[in-house]
Amino acid sequence: MSDSWNLQAYLEQRIGLVDEALDRYLPADDTLPAALHKAMRYSVFAGGKRIRPILLLAACEAVGGTAEHALPAACAMEMIHSYSLIHDDLPAMDDDDFRRGQPTNHRVFGEATAILAGDALLTEAFILLSNPAFCGEHSGEACREVVHIMARNAGSRGMVGGQVVDMESEGKQIDLPTLEYIHTHKTGALILAALEIGAIIGGATAEQRHALCRYGEAIGLAFQVADDILDIVADQTELGKDIGSDAARGKATYPAFLGLDGARQRARELKEIALKALAPFDDGSRPLREIAGFIVERTF
Amino acid sequence: MSDSWNLQAYLEQRIGLVDEALDRYLPADDTLPAALHKAMRYSVFAGGKRIRPILLLAACEAVGGTAEHALPAACAMEMIHSYSLIHDDLPAMDDDDFRRGQPTNHRVFGEATAILAGDALLTEAFILLSNPAFCGEHSGEACREVVHIMARNAGSRGMVGGQVVDMESEGKQIDLPTLEYIHTHKTGALILAALEIGAIIGGATAEQRHALCRYGEAIGLAFQVADDILDIVADQTELGKDIGSDAARGKATYPAFLGLDGARQRARELKEIALKALAPFDDGSRPLREIAGFIVERTF
Repeated sequence: MSDSWNLQAYLEQRIGLVDEALDRYLPADDTLPAALHKAMRYSVFAGGKRIRPILLLAACEAVGGTAEHALPAACAMEMIHSYSLIHDDLPAMDDDDFRRGQPTNHRVFGEATAILAGDALLTEAFILLSNPAFCGEHSGEACREVVHIMARNAGSRGMVGGQVVDMESEGKQIDLPTLEYIHTHKTGALILAALEIGAIIGGATAEQRHALCRYGEAIGLAFQVADDILDIVADQTELGKDIGSDAARGKATYPAFLGLDGARQRARELKEIALKALAPFDDGSRPLREIAGFIVERTF
Repeated sequence: MSDSWNLQAYLEQRIGLVDEALDRYLPADDTLPAALHKAMRYSVFAGGKRIRPILLLAACEAVGGTAEHALPAACAMEMIHSYSLIHDDLPAMDDDDFRRGQPTNHRVFGEATAILAGDALLTEAFILLSNPAFCGEHSGEACREVVHIMARNAGSRGMVGGQVVDMESEGKQIDLPTLEYIHTHKTGALILAALEIGAIIGGATAEQRHALCRYGEAIGLAFQVADDILDIVADQTELGKDIGSDAARGKATYPAFLGLDGARQRARELKEIALKALAPFDDGSRPLREIAGFIVERTF
């Protein structure tokens, strides 16, 4: 890779790749029942940054795999992320009217359809992961393992578990270990899964896989620390949600525990851990390095 | 099998087998987050008849497989069925306070936890289906196929799709094809999946698998026709819900289209189709035969 390598251009190219694949993999919005498929597509194409699928593709390539083979798993991951946002926004949960500046799914399609669109997106992810047309490229055993890691990290001891503890903690005093539990589960679990699944599909050795998981753990947490910081300092336009809305809800944040500077320091440490994990890799891990930097640097 | 074979005893033994396995496979209710795992277990153990897992095990045995190998898939199927009931009962959906005579999940645990318990049960099904400890017994390819069939039949073009059309149809005049669409998707898809997955795990030939699918389609529909009939004629104790509640909601039913006698006739025809599909099988298909009879005869 030459020095003209540019993260922004890379991310845009990858978003295009993922969006195009999602459009191909999702049922068309005139497939029956049309209302359901419209609702599913609405949230999937509501302007996500595709960070999880991009990480999955980058992990696959870092160990010598090709992005094309990992695209179905990358899109399955984004479907699971989208479902989680639809359900998080529901009146019974966070009761949000807007996300990324657009009306939330239930505001457009009604609560019942939003619940079912979330259910269907979660299920669609597993349809895609087990599709013989895509699984043929890796072994049956790799396919089973990918399904297992995706489900475990999305389920009651992964993402959903983190969401429950987050909900239980609202308006309560919680300690730092509880805050870390919430984030390593609610956000971290899927990011970790992205790295591990990318590694498997790319044919990683045990050592490479382990290294990519350590990278994933570090940037998953860094991502959340950065989000907490941005919730305080960013202007509303940039984030598309209310400034300081976490604090207004009485949600615990890293800056509340560590102060703003302490939180920034923590984000930097996590970036260093992530970069160290990538040390054994060659230039193919450059996107992963740059992404780690980007996550943390935007908080300064 | 001797002539002393007794369906009731068979079903009770199978319910015991499935319940015991579900208890083993589900996270303990003190596993963190405890509230979530309690909510998941509450609905799974709320007195279901386990018809889907029992059919899955019976299909596996009908082609010479052993029930033990099919137990994880049977339990995964019941988890998906349980999740669908939790979400169906939500205030935004059917808004039911009771199911099988017990308070619905959201009445006990709150709406947010009920939504997440449903999400987690759906996800847990895929954790179980891809667990290496169970998948080792069949090939990686069988494992992939089982995941695929389960997801396809549970998703937007299966069970969830049927639920959406059912919801859209409430209080509207619908035609018989729409009613059949609702039932073949909302209820039929999972029952069909139970037969097909049991066949795969049991090592069925293509012909056997095809025959079991035809059986599954017929009894899936028979099951729903019978339910519609029972909704009109059964007493409240037996069904644990309000008599004639479908009619009160303006839901279309088979008796409304065909009359009570016409609906019974249709149920009997479906039973005949189911039994004919089993013709090539030996005595190992007796449970499937008896279940087909039981589904239909209880309506007389």
